[in-house]
Amino acid sequence: MNSAKHSALDPKYWHIPKLDNSTLDKIKHRIDNKTKPLGALGKLEALAQSIALIQGQQTHSVTQIDINQPCILIFAADHGIAQHPISIAPREVTGQMVLNFLAGGAAINCFCRTSDVQLKVIDAGVLTPVTQTHADFIQQSVAAGTQDFSVAAAMTAAQLEQALVYGQTVAQQQIDNGSNLIGFGEMGIGNTTSASALLSVLTGLPANQTAGKGTGIDAQQLSRKIDLIDLSMQRVEQIYGQLPLTPIQALQEVGGFEIAQIVGAMLTTARAGKTIIVDGFIVSIAALLSCQIQANARDFMIFAHSSAEQAHSLVLDQLKATPLLNLDMRLGEGTGAALAVPLIRAAAEFYNNMATFESAQVNV
Amino acid sequence: MNSAKHSALDPKYWHIPKLDNSTLDKIKHRIDNKTKPLGALGKLEALAQSIALIQGQQTHSVTQIDINQPCILIFAADHGIAQHPISIAPREVTGQMVLNFLAGGAAINCFCRTSDVQLKVIDAGVLTPVTQTHADFIQQSVAAGTQDFSVAAAMTAAQLEQALVYGQTVAQQQIDNGSNLIGFGEMGIGNTTSASALLSVLTGLPANQTAGKGTGIDAQQLSRKIDLIDLSMQRVEQIYGQLPLTPIQALQEVGGFEIAQIVGAMLTTARAGKTIIVDGFIVSIAALLSCQIQANARDFMIFAHSSAEQAHSLVLDQLKATPLLNLDMRLGEGTGAALAVPLIRAAAEFYNNMATFESAQVNV
Repeated sequence: MNSAKHSALDPKYWHIPKLDNSTLDKIKHRIDNKTKPLGALGKLEALAQSIALIQGQQTHSVTQIDINQPCILIFAADHGIAQHPISIAPREVTGQMVLNFLAGGAAINCFCRTSDVQLKVIDAGVLTPVTQTHADFIQQSVAAGTQDFSVAAAMTAAQLEQALVYGQTVAQQQIDNGSNLIGFGEMGIGNTTSASALLSVLTGLPANQTAGKGTGIDAQQLSRKIDLIDLSMQRVEQIYGQLPLTPIQALQEVGGFEIAQIVGAMLTTARAGKTIIVDGFIVSIAALLSCQIQANARDFMIFAHSSAEQAHSLVLDQLKATPLLNLDMRLGEGTGAALAVPLIRAAAEFYNNMATFESAQVNV
Repeated sequence: MNSAKHSALDPKYWHIPKLDNSTLDKIKHRIDNKTKPLGALGKLEALAQSIALIQGQQTHSVTQIDINQPCILIFAADHGIAQHPISIAPREVTGQMVLNFLAGGAAINCFCRTSDVQLKVIDAGVLTPVTQTHADFIQQSVAAGTQDFSVAAAMTAAQLEQALVYGQTVAQQQIDNGSNLIGFGEMGIGNTTSASALLSVLTGLPANQTAGKGTGIDAQQLSRKIDLIDLSMQRVEQIYGQLPLTPIQALQEVGGFEIAQIVGAMLTTARAGKTIIVDGFIVSIAALLSCQIQANARDFMIFAHSSAEQAHSLVLDQLKATPLLNLDMRLGEGTGAALAVPLIRAAAEFYNNMATFESAQVNV
């Protein structure tokens, strides 16, 4: 995949061909002919249609959706901005939660168990690098956390390139191992602040519209978070002369190592023609960045959960996305993605095996 | 269960003791101490709390939720009102769909397979009684469809009593076999008209507020449906002198055999201290009737899916219920209940096995 011509910082490096939708009519006909009133399975019909289209491009068949080895990749990293009091937890919690993921004790572990989904945990840049040996752990830390982006770029160009390529590597491993459905999760104290700052510099929207309460900060912490994002916007506007920034500029200036690795992994998944499950506010920001780098990535994305984080709806609007679930969760970790997998399996099963009016001899 | 003193038409027959909530604080403490910000699992926390409370009453333990042999009971019956052109399909489709359920070809079969849920299909009053021998089929037809309730009572008092007791019998069988989570589904051409009429005579709301497009009728059919319900309201108002009717009166006048059997089954499930999954508009009307017969039944109910049927939100408001899912489905069959079971398993798993901050050594 590595190109001699392009660096991973060049959008051309991630070229994704447009999804072939020549089978769309056949897919719609198959869905409409099932033993149910037209459209009666609502979002599950749209879901089956999306996946059938993605898979049909490779298999040239419209009669079968296969869900093979679905997995969730959780990328964890720390943030320089979290030196300020903008989070409910101290920075060392990022690394402690990585150990909790590896011990099987977190919410995402519970949901992966009940949804029969594999979980891989990636140290993308935790403050104290995680050294544990574990079959489901991948150490590919770019650095021990980003810089405080209110005063300097979060990362260097070389670090961003490294992060994107690391993301590519881990997604390609999952695809090579047979996974055709990859969900994304994240862990990083301070990363809703980075995600909100990314949304601000990508759209020009002020921080009071892009920042929210994260996992539960109070009004004073929220006010501080908004001030820091506004400060960062002023900083980058001075450097680049104007907003919005390009996605690559945005990632380098106010991004996080976990967010950048997710972008590299999403673009790799889309390029390989596999299905992406997008979950929550931070992962949705990574999806927005991915689509700004390669617009064709959008066709490979399924949206799992509407977060309680207020700015999530802004991001979903930009992506023209309606998530499957709205469970008022605000945890991250890929929890929404794991909970969406049973719905995806249900959509595949009705698409594959539900009777037609003719086969069932029903007079409609 | 059968009382010498009371008939099943007497609410006292269905006496349900108030759910003991003395363990609520312990259950909340357990949930709040998991490795997540307070409330970050949203609706799944409320779900775990409800089930822990229900099960704790019997086990006197707050440390474990067990999901044993979850099942969906689909009750099928025909409706005299469907002689009028108010449905997208002819009446014989009810029986044909029962055969489709038994052949495994319907949407509910697909979702029960992927959700690992047992399915039982009950002929509660299909026009041409279903005679098939099948391990998952139960023949307990009250009669070959109800009377046209725009001109006469849908059923006799004796038929209603029989339907309620049949519902009791089938629920008790599932409970005796070890099921502690019972979802409800229905099939019956014309049964959204019966459900809307029930809502009208229970609340006094005119038909243009309680009737909707069902599985997809056109404006003319909807107008006819509204007229028939208004006519029925006038008919029963003349008999009883006023609206609203009691739930027993309402069921006899404008109900259906499948709806009445669901009411008997729900009351039996609640009385046994097991968890009920309510799905969709018609089953929610049965839930409303059950709660009007025995208010304490409400504490044993979980709500699976917000239907696209417009009046469903009215019923949910009456029941103070917020469903887990909103997938824009309008099919019935218990499809929403089957899709909710993986979320219920996920809630149980986090409640049972997610680490605490202390056990995971996380500093929050």
